[in-house]
Amino acid sequence: MKEPGFASAAIIGLGLMGGSIALALQALDETIAIVGIDNDANARAQAAQKGIAASADLRDIAGADLVVLAAPVRSILRLLPSVASHAKDGALVLDLGSTKREITAAMASLPERLNPIGGHPMCGKEVSGFHAADAKLYNSAVFVLTPLPRTTRDALDKAQSFVRMLGARPLLLEPARHDRIVALVSHLPFALAVALMTMATLSDQSDEVTYELAAGGFRDSTRLAASDTQMMLDTLLTNRDNVSELLRSCARELDGLADMIAHGNADALAPILESAAQRRREMFR
Amino acid sequence: MKEPGFASAAIIGLGLMGGSIALALQALDETIAIVGIDNDANARAQAAQKGIAASADLRDIAGADLVVLAAPVRSILRLLPSVASHAKDGALVLDLGSTKREITAAMASLPERLNPIGGHPMCGKEVSGFHAADAKLYNSAVFVLTPLPRTTRDALDKAQSFVRMLGARPLLLEPARHDRIVALVSHLPFALAVALMTMATLSDQSDEVTYELAAGGFRDSTRLAASDTQMMLDTLLTNRDNVSELLRSCARELDGLADMIAHGNADALAPILESAAQRRREMFR
Repeated sequence: MKEPGFASAAIIGLGLMGGSIALALQALDETIAIVGIDNDANARAQAAQKGIAASADLRDIAGADLVVLAAPVRSILRLLPSVASHAKDGALVLDLGSTKREITAAMASLPERLNPIGGHPMCGKEVSGFHAADAKLYNSAVFVLTPLPRTTRDALDKAQSFVRMLGARPLLLEPARHDRIVALVSHLPFALAVALMTMATLSDQSDEVTYELAAGGFRDSTRLAASDTQMMLDTLLTNRDNVSELLRSCARELDGLADMIAHGNADALAPILESAAQRRREMFR
Repeated sequence: MKEPGFASAAIIGLGLMGGSIALALQALDETIAIVGIDNDANARAQAAQKGIAASADLRDIAGADLVVLAAPVRSILRLLPSVASHAKDGALVLDLGSTKREITAAMASLPERLNPIGGHPMCGKEVSGFHAADAKLYNSAVFVLTPLPRTTRDALDKAQSFVRMLGARPLLLEPARHDRIVALVSHLPFALAVALMTMATLSDQSDEVTYELAAGGFRDSTRLAASDTQMMLDTLLTNRDNVSELLRSCARELDGLADMIAHGNADALAPILESAAQRRREMFR
């Protein structure tokens, strides 16, 4: 890949997402100077083993044209003042946080000499840590970009080139619209998986056969419950209004289904099941 | 495989489950005479193409030592009187229905000359029809058997040999215990997937970007919603008490999570998310 628009990149956070970006850049263009920043000595050692220069010192972002913040949302919010202090003039500052309103609001206060833009790649996994990182993680993924009012045309172009360089597809969205949609397609499914695991754990305590009967359907339905707790806690708590509203609607939806089932109301149930099945089949062929 | 305890088998219903049994028996022992019964000419043609004799006439079960009922629960209930009329003396009558209380209760009224036992293999899929059938579908699956009070030791032994012949692992359970557990590990996850699809469809009508942001997590969380509608309708309606109770508990669980999130109560949320994540990781390594 030629002309990425930057000669050096600092990636703050060497977990699954940040580690995968470091590996992808390394594989794509060996002329880009990459530094990974992480507090965790283990993550640094794993990155170093793959040839990624790793440091615990945020001041080491000073040389980077591109600064990527790859951490849970509230960590990103805490890191922004240090980025403000240490990033070099003109640096593009891109975050990968799962919610965008609080982060873009905080980015608005970064010094004028920096070029911030929000980002959220839709390719998370329920595994975490550098050991799970994969240079191909971003391939074919949708990568949301949420420009700020102050984001320049040039900064946006650079961010889009970077996203395409990773093999992903940039999609521009307002932060509020992003947060509303991910509440539905990501945070609500996570909360349902947690609720299922909570209920299964209670039942398992009273009947040891529970898990023996849990087959593929249960496995898929609960997969998201294994997501990193800190990441999801930050995500839910920075999207409170959307997530709590959806959880309450979903609870009413379940109570409605419970009533139809309790009353044996096949005429009401059948079209609901049929339309859900049809939409699901259309959606993922 | 030698000595299966039966020389001929009739399989009523040539969908995914019945078709897979027909193909498995055919592959395992060419000396077993197999006949598949189905109203659907398409399913019969597909079976015939794979060398399975197929008929639309239930009287053709008359020669079979083993009669397998592979249909939605309420179809099985409707078929039992015909099985009573046409199955031969001493035939083992096994069903594959997803709930067991109503079926075993109805089986109790079969003529004394027949040997009924309930069954439920835990290897369903969200695809259906003979075209999806697979001789290896049952490999390594748990296969619940729910003997009736009248089920003889010999009939139970034969049913267990049959299950092992398919490569599955027999697990004996009371019908009521089976229905309680599958409500949790199978019917509740299905209902949650339906609720998610219903909510996503509403949102998609107001924001066309919804499905673009739906990545792997949403795909897995909604997979069960694509299940065969008739099968699931029969399943839910013959397990009303358990499913409606669980849906109501789950609704309360979601309202509880909504409150914690709305109030930003990280101290209450963190241990719930962490324990769900830990149990999920232990459960599926």
